[in-house]
Amino acid sequence: MSLKKLIDPASIAIVGVSTKKATFQVGGRAIFDHLRLHGYDQRIDLVTREKAVIDGVETVTSLRELSHVPDCVVISVPADDVYATVEEALGLGVRAFVVITGGFSESGEEGAAKQARLAALVRSHGAAMLGPNTTGFVNLGRRVALSSTSRITASLPRPGVVGLVVQSGALGSALMEEAERAGIGLSHVISTGNEAATGLADFVQFLVDDPATRAIALYVEGIRESGRLLAAARSAHAAGKPVALYKAGRSEAGRRTAAGHTGALVGERGAYEAAVRQLGWVDVAAIEDLLPVAQYVATACATRSLGILTVSGGYGGCVADALESSGAVSLPAPGEATVARMRADIPAFLSTRNPVDIAGTPFRRPEGFATCLDAFADDPAFDGIAVANTPIVPPWAENVADAMIAASRRTGKPISLVSPAEIFNGAALGRLRREGVPVFTRIDTFVAAVAGAAVADAARRAPPRLLREGPAEGRELRLDGVPVALSEAASKDLLKARGLAFPREAFVPGADGAAVLAAAREVGYPVTLKGMAAGVVHKSELGLVAVAVPDEAALKARIAAMLDSIKTHALTLEGFLLAETVRPQAEVILGLGLDPEFGPTLTFGAGGIYTEIMRDVAVRILPLDPQEIAAMIRSCRIAALLEGARGRPALDVEALTDLAVAVADLAPGLGHDFAGLELNPVGVGRAGEGAWILDATVFRMGAPS
Amino acid sequence: MSLKKLIDPASIAIVGVSTKKATFQVGGRAIFDHLRLHGYDQRIDLVTREKAVIDGVETVTSLRELSHVPDCVVISVPADDVYATVEEALGLGVRAFVVITGGFSESGEEGAAKQARLAALVRSHGAAMLGPNTTGFVNLGRRVALSSTSRITASLPRPGVVGLVVQSGALGSALMEEAERAGIGLSHVISTGNEAATGLADFVQFLVDDPATRAIALYVEGIRESGRLLAAARSAHAAGKPVALYKAGRSEAGRRTAAGHTGALVGERGAYEAAVRQLGWVDVAAIEDLLPVAQYVATACATRSLGILTVSGGYGGCVADALESSGAVSLPAPGEATVARMRADIPAFLSTRNPVDIAGTPFRRPEGFATCLDAFADDPAFDGIAVANTPIVPPWAENVADAMIAASRRTGKPISLVSPAEIFNGAALGRLRREGVPVFTRIDTFVAAVAGAAVADAARRAPPRLLREGPAEGRELRLDGVPVALSEAASKDLLKARGLAFPREAFVPGADGAAVLAAAREVGYPVTLKGMAAGVVHKSELGLVAVAVPDEAALKARIAAMLDSIKTHALTLEGFLLAETVRPQAEVILGLGLDPEFGPTLTFGAGGIYTEIMRDVAVRILPLDPQEIAAMIRSCRIAALLEGARGRPALDVEALTDLAVAVADLAPGLGHDFAGLELNPVGVGRAGEGAWILDATVFRMGAPS
Repeated sequence: MSLKKLIDPASIAIVGVSTKKATFQVGGRAIFDHLRLHGYDQRIDLVTREKAVIDGVETVTSLRELSHVPDCVVISVPADDVYATVEEALGLGVRAFVVITGGFSESGEEGAAKQARLAALVRSHGAAMLGPNTTGFVNLGRRVALSSTSRITASLPRPGVVGLVVQSGALGSALMEEAERAGIGLSHVISTGNEAATGLADFVQFLVDDPATRAIALYVEGIRESGRLLAAARSAHAAGKPVALYKAGRSEAGRRTAAGHTGALVGERGAYEAAVRQLGWVDVAAIEDLLPVAQYVATACATRSLGILTVSGGYGGCVADALESSGAVSLPAPGEATVARMRADIPAFLSTRNPVDIAGTPFRRPEGFATCLDAFADDPAFDGIAVANTPIVPPWAENVADAMIAASRRTGKPISLVSPAEIFNGAALGRLRREGVPVFTRIDTFVAAVAGAAVADAARRAPPRLLREGPAEGRELRLDGVPVALSEAASKDLLKARGLAFPREAFVPGADGAAVLAAAREVGYPVTLKGMAAGVVHKSELGLVAVAVPDEAALKARIAAMLDSIKTHALTLEGFLLAETVRPQAEVILGLGLDPEFGPTLTFGAGGIYTEIMRDVAVRILPLDPQEIAAMIRSCRIAALLEGARGRPALDVEALTDLAVAVADLAPGLGHDFAGLELNPVGVGRAGEGAWILDATVFRMGAPS
Repeated sequence: MSLKKLIDPASIAIVGVSTKKATFQVGGRAIFDHLRLHGYDQRIDLVTREKAVIDGVETVTSLRELSHVPDCVVISVPADDVYATVEEALGLGVRAFVVITGGFSESGEEGAAKQARLAALVRSHGAAMLGPNTTGFVNLGRRVALSSTSRITASLPRPGVVGLVVQSGALGSALMEEAERAGIGLSHVISTGNEAATGLADFVQFLVDDPATRAIALYVEGIRESGRLLAAARSAHAAGKPVALYKAGRSEAGRRTAAGHTGALVGERGAYEAAVRQLGWVDVAAIEDLLPVAQYVATACATRSLGILTVSGGYGGCVADALESSGAVSLPAPGEATVARMRADIPAFLSTRNPVDIAGTPFRRPEGFATCLDAFADDPAFDGIAVANTPIVPPWAENVADAMIAASRRTGKPISLVSPAEIFNGAALGRLRREGVPVFTRIDTFVAAVAGAAVADAARRAPPRLLREGPAEGRELRLDGVPVALSEAASKDLLKARGLAFPREAFVPGADGAAVLAAAREVGYPVTLKGMAAGVVHKSELGLVAVAVPDEAALKARIAAMLDSIKTHALTLEGFLLAETVRPQAEVILGLGLDPEFGPTLTFGAGGIYTEIMRDVAVRILPLDPQEIAAMIRSCRIAALLEGARGRPALDVEALTDLAVAVADLAPGLGHDFAGLELNPVGVGRAGEGAWILDATVFRMGAPS
């Protein structure tokens, strides 16, 4: 299945076109009008109920009347007629459809059944189908405005390098509005509709293969067929095309597998966020920033250190503050040579701080600003430059634009203008945008773009294993049940059978001192001894707990003391519990989860009571390299404690990492009905002492509730 | 000192006006041009070096030549001539000045000396002075464009209810640009310059008293004279005028008092953020959102529950997601009556969720949308309404605007449009703005506005003690030294002398059993016993620690067992330590800090090693009510643990709160060189058991480094 005929058709037929005049046309007629309005100059045939002439085109009443096979057939007939129309067209040899008609899966069960039948038909012929229930698409470079959205009756964004795929036609309109306001060029806007046969992953793959597209922007409501999407992500990565996305809402499905802490902590977005991170995709928090971020990462992926040049200390400071708190980029001081080159054009009291506040001084001579900017742009300390300007007199703004365009071309570095002066300096801003120089009118949008570039760049330099190898072996996930916790004993037995080690322990009934000594030799010194007496809760207060008894002599003394205490307090001894002495200095949680879209996940975080309270947790999709697991541990705040915070000794991060790797390795073998695993707490000893699973729960998928 | 003559002058004289033609005028000449351009129609006199006629005005060469006393004198002469000019004007009876000239404190020590002399002169006459080094102000309602900023050569924002004070002229330009783009009306834009004699607090007070101003927006770089600012904040609160502000940069001074954890945790912004919170001011994170937030809170302060009506499930969902994650507002479902009223105009599959997705259906009849909106606006579940729309055909947008204007007037509820359709639906958006209906083109700006309204509303309902009573007794703070920690013993002694209790303990040397028993009666049962032996570090492992010994019989047994162990291990006994048994179930930190601007602060947070790792900490300016202290404790994540997380027992929050109140009460009496106090950890027992100071450090201000 190729999408070429769908998205770049040499001929189009539209079935279901109104012959009536209306102020605002809809459906097939709107598409015809929009194709014509925006310059589609290849063949368009129209299929109407009655023969007519519309805007010079003689219509037909059936596709069969056409003497050729159209590349793409647009369908805007009632839902009940769609199947027959598609069937007829397939018979004529058509292999690409855009189905505008609604009333399919979005409208209930009956519609969903109709859609399934339609999808099967289209798939069986290896055809492509955008929709049903889509507003269509716009191929801006080829002037194919095959969209019913009324927004484009006014105007279209300019052609450019960002390919946009949206799972909502209305969001497509909203984003075209944003693109036009921000002067961002788009290669395509594709509204996927119900994705019956051809979906998000297919269109991402199309844009990966499209030469006009240099970055891909997605508005995502739900991810289906995550395997194919991951494959598309891998090819986008291979092609060096960054992906930015805005994810709407929360995944209903995600909630169903929430088991124990792990599930609740990972939350609905946990696995999604992990996947985005591990694919090197740029997660955009504000829908309005999606296209500016995509546009920036399309060309400017290496910005890790930034120099700020500003006419206003206040405004430049706002930019610096926002960049600093994002942590995405460093703001080094300019080099001595840079300062020397600027000296003639800036106030004597210039400090070598970054941002450099040039005020209005350089504009006293025509080449003043360019001299400063060139010095900045040549400074090897800076990967990128931000010119942060409040409104300035228009001739200065033109001077700034000239210098920025020249320096961008000369150095190849991303040189962005951050300025709110859309009105007062509108002409200069427009010129910069047309010349491909990034312009941001909001500081937070610029910060999101720079942070996004850092994310895309990091994935390019060191692709995560998920991106290198693809997801773990696919297997059927049971999502039709509810997770049920096994008992502690059953959980431990299951995990021991799969090779996880627990602290050694032994119980010796009665008061058999020799047997206790023998058991202690098995468990190993230093040993922890507990006198078990009926009805006693606070053992410590009665002297019935001895921690880390060093040797046999001491053990004998402690046994004697405990027997004394039993006698003194008139208790009934049940026996002695011996346990390997573990001295956890920190408690963490390790878990395996199961995401309905992305499969097995690994969770790590602060453990014990802090698991919920501090929400200090990291989640990743498997498979993971040991180095990735180590980095995951380091990414949590609890890592400061593990690494020896505030003069405390460093803990056994190595043993913890080994345990986490062993837990991750369990995932493929846990069986069809595995629903989750939670080790909480895992105690971590001092460096060299080890890490110990102190409690464990395995979840199995039980019967549906 | 009244600012009326300064900001609303019946006559103006400008000293230092260029007679030359130029494309862009600066200084006094620019002010003259701008006053004329924007319709100032009262008397303007110009003082030039040589007599001239400028734009029909015959100039004079000295203020003495004028036959009247101008209300306001603008000064744009060289820095060295400013003093003499002001002195002369004061002699003539002038009491209001705007000093444009730079070269004062911003340019170094010499300039600062000039400024101090000028300020003293102005103050000694009870006069008002904006500047020096200011761009001036614009009084939009009275058409007084007394500003040199070139931005206003193009246009001015429309007059309105938001009064803006900026500590940067360039930011003033940037914000006027934003106001114009967003159709926000301003009452004044005042750029404070160097604030030599008249500062931020004075202008806030002026706007509080100004009838045209209903909300105050501030761009703040540094707060001086915090006492006067707090007083202005109290009068703004009394007048029901909300204040929104953007705070730039970080306070250098804040770093100097950073002592121990408390200082580092509070950070540079801690006291500032606390002050803003306790004044009920709205802290705006993005400079571009400052004016939209101020505009919204000017009129819409009661939004706590919001109904969302949308033509796009996707876009409405984005709005709902952003509101939900802000936590600022609830999104209840509409009532049954509301749904019944909407039924005729919306698709049959409407759910009763919020947002309600009406798609395009209501637009089938002219009154359809109004019917839906009226039903929504009448629903008592909603304090406010958001209409969240993607671009729609212009007649529908006009229909939406009609309905929103009518419903806003009828119900008085804030009904906002959230829509990016600035281009496609520009006419309707413009009309809504002119009619005073809030319009937001970015979702995050709307969320900031709603969250801001919630903050302002909360302060109105329950004003914090700082707002009710003003700051704690003013006293000289020593900021010229470095904080030095006292020893643990000295710290404890100091705090004990001031009434803080520590756990009881006693040391009994040697092996005097009777003395140990007597000491135990003093300390109280259950008692904790430690056998102190020379060179022993791990007492527990040798059985030399007995926790919570319940009674004398048990204590005797434990003494005997310890003496046995001493003998067995051939140790030298030093004696027995007895201590009140404390069973901390959680560790917290309590601290007092000292902010150079706002005075004593109270800090509470997670304690022990988690203090730094989890950054779970709250800071407040003193004085505080006990209820405010309790709320401060509840605001930290550690509160979940204190209140009994995950089936664990509730802890003694009451004892902790009492201790925190006692700590706060220490602040006024800790003396001139007090620099900080840190109780970390404070152990909290189970409900009824108590809270115990386990470690304490007092900081004193030492000699300057």
